[in-house]
Amino acid sequence: MRLKVSLLDLESGGKFIVVLNREDAEDLGVSGLSRVKLSCRGKEVTAIVNVAFESIMRGYVGVYNEVKKYMNLREGDEVEVEAAHSPLSVYYVRNKLHGRKLTYEEIFEIVKDVVSGNLSEIEIAAFVTALHTYGLDLDEATSLSIAMVETGNKLELKKPLIVDKHSIGGVPGDKTTLLVVPIIAASGLTIPKSSSRSITSAAGTADRAEVLMPVALGIDELREVVEKTNGCIVWGGALDLAPADDIFIRVEHPLSIDPLLLPSIMSKKKAVGANLLVIDIPTGRGTKIKTIGEADLLAKDFIELGRRLGIKVQCAVTYGEQPVGYAIGPALEAWEALNTIMGKGQTYDLIDKAAHIAGMLLEMSGKAYGDGREMALEILRSGKAEEKLREIIGAQGGDPDIKPDDIALGSERFTVRSKRDGIVLWIDNASIVEAARLAGAPKDKGAGVLLHKKIGDRVSEGEALATVFAERASKLERAISIFEGLPVIGVGERMEMLIHEIRERPIAKKTFVLER
Amino acid sequence: MRLKVSLLDLESGGKFIVVLNREDAEDLGVSGLSRVKLSCRGKEVTAIVNVAFESIMRGYVGVYNEVKKYMNLREGDEVEVEAAHSPLSVYYVRNKLHGRKLTYEEIFEIVKDVVSGNLSEIEIAAFVTALHTYGLDLDEATSLSIAMVETGNKLELKKPLIVDKHSIGGVPGDKTTLLVVPIIAASGLTIPKSSSRSITSAAGTADRAEVLMPVALGIDELREVVEKTNGCIVWGGALDLAPADDIFIRVEHPLSIDPLLLPSIMSKKKAVGANLLVIDIPTGRGTKIKTIGEADLLAKDFIELGRRLGIKVQCAVTYGEQPVGYAIGPALEAWEALNTIMGKGQTYDLIDKAAHIAGMLLEMSGKAYGDGREMALEILRSGKAEEKLREIIGAQGGDPDIKPDDIALGSERFTVRSKRDGIVLWIDNASIVEAARLAGAPKDKGAGVLLHKKIGDRVSEGEALATVFAERASKLERAISIFEGLPVIGVGERMEMLIHEIRERPIAKKTFVLER
Repeated sequence: MRLKVSLLDLESGGKFIVVLNREDAEDLGVSGLSRVKLSCRGKEVTAIVNVAFESIMRGYVGVYNEVKKYMNLREGDEVEVEAAHSPLSVYYVRNKLHGRKLTYEEIFEIVKDVVSGNLSEIEIAAFVTALHTYGLDLDEATSLSIAMVETGNKLELKKPLIVDKHSIGGVPGDKTTLLVVPIIAASGLTIPKSSSRSITSAAGTADRAEVLMPVALGIDELREVVEKTNGCIVWGGALDLAPADDIFIRVEHPLSIDPLLLPSIMSKKKAVGANLLVIDIPTGRGTKIKTIGEADLLAKDFIELGRRLGIKVQCAVTYGEQPVGYAIGPALEAWEALNTIMGKGQTYDLIDKAAHIAGMLLEMSGKAYGDGREMALEILRSGKAEEKLREIIGAQGGDPDIKPDDIALGSERFTVRSKRDGIVLWIDNASIVEAARLAGAPKDKGAGVLLHKKIGDRVSEGEALATVFAERASKLERAISIFEGLPVIGVGERMEMLIHEIRERPIAKKTFVLER
Repeated sequence: MRLKVSLLDLESGGKFIVVLNREDAEDLGVSGLSRVKLSCRGKEVTAIVNVAFESIMRGYVGVYNEVKKYMNLREGDEVEVEAAHSPLSVYYVRNKLHGRKLTYEEIFEIVKDVVSGNLSEIEIAAFVTALHTYGLDLDEATSLSIAMVETGNKLELKKPLIVDKHSIGGVPGDKTTLLVVPIIAASGLTIPKSSSRSITSAAGTADRAEVLMPVALGIDELREVVEKTNGCIVWGGALDLAPADDIFIRVEHPLSIDPLLLPSIMSKKKAVGANLLVIDIPTGRGTKIKTIGEADLLAKDFIELGRRLGIKVQCAVTYGEQPVGYAIGPALEAWEALNTIMGKGQTYDLIDKAAHIAGMLLEMSGKAYGDGREMALEILRSGKAEEKLREIIGAQGGDPDIKPDDIALGSERFTVRSKRDGIVLWIDNASIVEAARLAGAPKDKGAGVLLHKKIGDRVSEGEALATVFAERASKLERAISIFEGLPVIGVGERMEMLIHEIRERPIAKKTFVLER
């Protein structure tokens, strides 16, 4: 059926939706739960049907902005609309629901149909749930990785060796990438780093970097920056490297499950053409991976999956029981990273972590022999890393002369003080993140938390433990409430054993870390 | 935030959707993937947010028809809109995703939030998938049954004994209910039968009955009919007996899984107040339950679940390898049932099945002692069943004097003939249903298939095997194509062993039966 496009000025948040007149819908044999295939000028999309009685006339199809953009439609365009039949991939999803292992061809069909809207949210949710409950083996993880690469953009730099690093996330304040990329690029290696924005955290690397420079670069701009400076720190979202992943994340997030962790990360590394890769696995109670044993198992899978994809992988299992450095929140973290790379401040844990990870890459590439960490520290101390960071900032369109004082931190502030003398025994990562998010992070860049003490530090009653930053007073209030409930920073003597008492059946609201 | 209602004249097919102006959405902190809670005059609903730039002004909220109906809204009404937080039930769904058994309280929260729109399609799909992959035990099935009763309407007839029957479906042409209800009602027992429309079949009992009488009765009308005649045959959809089930079905259907079979059926029986119940389990290759062993296992669960709900259940495991009677399709089946109850025609299998099931109920109730089937046949032969059916037709608002010839059968017809001499060895239920659906059933009531031969009958080359009925020539063409592919009715000699050859990797499009 040929219908005329009527642009609706409506946005669903990512789903393809069209509105048909009830009678046209009946003629097509579709209803409010069906899907239709639209084609126009060689482009095709499958969209969910909504039905109108009078607001859309017969002969017209109302289109949401998502459909308009994907299909490049203008008001009055003629499109061919037909009832969409269940794609073949639906049968493959059903096989997985019954616990069957899927072949590469089957997984490719599923991923392709996820990207083009052929699979509904119900079908994608069921697929992700089945991957979670049955698990996916390394063959399937490999297939998913390759299928996600094949259905997206590829970077294709003309360089013989490309290195990369990635953290599976989960530890707050982790601005390590802002140091590792300049160190590695300054060493002469190529590191086209793409990062994600925060999903459940207070700041993703893209959010942090954006305080210093534009990060929403297209794939051609990225190529230009890397060819000029050997490195970049950009947001992956504008690159369309593995578009299926963004759709999977939309389903994983409300469910708090993440069966696609391995293929998601590895597909993006494959898409930028990485040959050597270090994966950081922060480990500890407050992170995604709670124990060292679990971290080792995950590392084994990353290394094997890398082997199958032609990427040499090494993993760094790192300490994640407290934030990295002192700053949590986009601007605070950018400010801390800039200070650190300029040799100011005392963020020893941040420096140690960055030097280890950069050192591993230097050794893997043959730039260093057993002394990678030393070489990384030397690049940092010499000022070459700072110089390189400023070069990258400039190439991405930022101010290469930016000073820490130029960074705007939230002007609404509140200092949390210790209620007793003692030693900082633990810091609850999840509550720190919640406070930073309630204060406005990551959307309000100046919002966040700055710690004054870390685990092992001695404090006196009334001494400052942390400062909360916000851009608006109302948000500061909400963030402060976190510090008024259960303790967030545990201060005590080393002998104290009780963690907390449970007196009635609790509702376990487990924190979920979904960072890529 | 208080917003003015703007009615959108849009229908999503069951989902609650509202449209906010982008700036209002930002102020509320919601986006195109979030949900908001609407309240107005004591009614509340949670709806999915879509965003508009100019078509909805600040201060207004566009509402889809589903929201309008549920909340009883008029243009210009003021509603309170706030960001919806994840309901507690989300945590319970997540527990199930990790394989935890759920308590009644947890399941009740989930079902309540399914009905009120608090759980998204993603969350419901994940819940249903997890029930499918981990399975649900009888405790959970009991909890689900009770929760589904508690979140819907109850019939509450003032009768000491209420009997009911239900088929789990899957065998085409099963018009048994059209005979059992009048037999039972004529015996003096009360049988308030509610049925579903077809989901994946050629006709549901509600579709068949609708050819003879109105079936979309409200709960008060139903009560009146039953008080007058002892029985009824109505569509369950208008009664809102277990509204959660309709939402679960919407998710189960595209996924071809049905973990809620037991609670779905039993909750509806509990909601009408049934004390005695016979469940028909059609068994055979072409049905939902393939083997007698499986049928027995399912019967055990129905009987135990009934015991927990205070319903005495017996099961009839019936032969389902071919359609019941000869007619498949709403009008054809109503026509065959009316003929049969009037003593015309030779549908021995239909009569046998109806008499057995009615007989079981007569014995369970104490009306008969060991001779229930005989008593049922006697009620049928004596004309009392026909009289009672006409009484029910009249009470429901149909023509009590309806004759078989008054029923309009599709005028577009095609006769399928045997390509060889032999015996009918098998009939492929799934292909018969597909042909009837392609011909227009269940929407086109006159469409369907009429068999002329059944398993064991001898046929000659060129003899008629079946006639396809349609209301439109184009649909008849589509239905005929089914008979041009693989054989639908297998004719041969008894020694022939090969079923079919597979020469390359097939895509197994398993038929899925989702009938309730």
